[in-house]
Amino acid sequence: MKTIAIVSGGIDSVTMLHHLVADKRYDVVCAVTMDYGQRHRREIDAAKHHADLLGVPHRIVDFGAFGASVGSALTDETVDVPYGHFESDIMKCTVVPNRNMVLIATAAAVAIATGAEAVAYAAHSGDHAIYPDCRPAFVDAMRQALMVADWQPIRLIAPFVDMDKTAIARIGLGLGIDYDTTWSCYEGGDTHCGKCGTCVERIEALEGAKCTK
Amino acid sequence: MKTIAIVSGGIDSVTMLHHLVADKRYDVVCAVTMDYGQRHRREIDAAKHHADLLGVPHRIVDFGAFGASVGSALTDETVDVPYGHFESDIMKCTVVPNRNMVLIATAAAVAIATGAEAVAYAAHSGDHAIYPDCRPAFVDAMRQALMVADWQPIRLIAPFVDMDKTAIARIGLGLGIDYDTTWSCYEGGDTHCGKCGTCVERIEALEGAKCTK
Repeated sequence: MKTIAIVSGGIDSVTMLHHLVADKRYDVVCAVTMDYGQRHRREIDAAKHHADLLGVPHRIVDFGAFGASVGSALTDETVDVPYGHFESDIMKCTVVPNRNMVLIATAAAVAIATGAEAVAYAAHSGDHAIYPDCRPAFVDAMRQALMVADWQPIRLIAPFVDMDKTAIARIGLGLGIDYDTTWSCYEGGDTHCGKCGTCVERIEALEGAKCTK
Repeated sequence: MKTIAIVSGGIDSVTMLHHLVADKRYDVVCAVTMDYGQRHRREIDAAKHHADLLGVPHRIVDFGAFGASVGSALTDETVDVPYGHFESDIMKCTVVPNRNMVLIATAAAVAIATGAEAVAYAAHSGDHAIYPDCRPAFVDAMRQALMVADWQPIRLIAPFVDMDKTAIARIGLGLGIDYDTTWSCYEGGDTHCGKCGTCVERIEALEGAKCTK
């Protein structure tokens, strides 16, 4: 099945890309990264690195105007990034409004334009508490919408929607992914800050996924 | 209900804007026009004109990169615009891939960012044959997705989804809209060409809607 993979460059989406390429049911024809005015470019570079590694064409869609229009802690230099865990209210301000619907709609447009049959994104259960657009109810509704939006039904694939980040990292380590070449930090530094919500989740997942035998 | 109206500048969306402003259940806090690299600016100017006329703030979201990414007869200068009726296969190439899902997702992002509760778009029955993303099944699926995409449920309003363009023009003439200040032509000329699909539909609707007593 010709598939467009939405890849941000973090653990979840990079693992999904490797996972889909390894699964022969899928023919990943394009990895799409949305540039919505992130404060750092490391994430986009990481996405491109893994697409190149796997021989998957990589396309960046420029959503700078979108980021500028709606604003958020992720794109607005004046807003401090809160430290802590995703499951706390304080992290809500890191949410780009309606991000996954915009990303999925855009990737589906690329799918329709290129004759692909599916769009994949890396929603997972660790994000259910804080991001409504990572939950099964959202996936189900978007799946239905994508079946009727165009003459060509587009399938929505969310392979990790009932899986946590540690399980994702287990799959990735099994696939031999070098996670040092992924990027998840909300800060714009040269190395992962180790303190922001996404860094804390990243460390926990990689620690938890270590092979024990 | 605080509402974001998607307004392209043609008969349907301009009529919807006037209709929502006239209906006291709605508080239209913003008219959003997507600039997805259209070949002409008349459409965007028309949208702004009617928003200004009604005292509704107008916002243009720059989707030039989106148009450039996916291409279509509407945005690609090298593709001829076919003449004829919307209900013929030849018109399919005027469809921007997945346009309404992208527009609705973006308008919903603006709604979430600004605290609005609803998004409105002007799908109508005359487009059902050619545009799947104007059909009730698509509206229903997107309505469900928008109820669960964010902490704040967003309502999707499609007041004309079971109404044809002639009925829309009747409402508009009743509201006193000057349709000379709307723009629907796919060609980039100074006046409506009168021959492209959208011009033919426009003329039929305005003729059909004329008050007979």
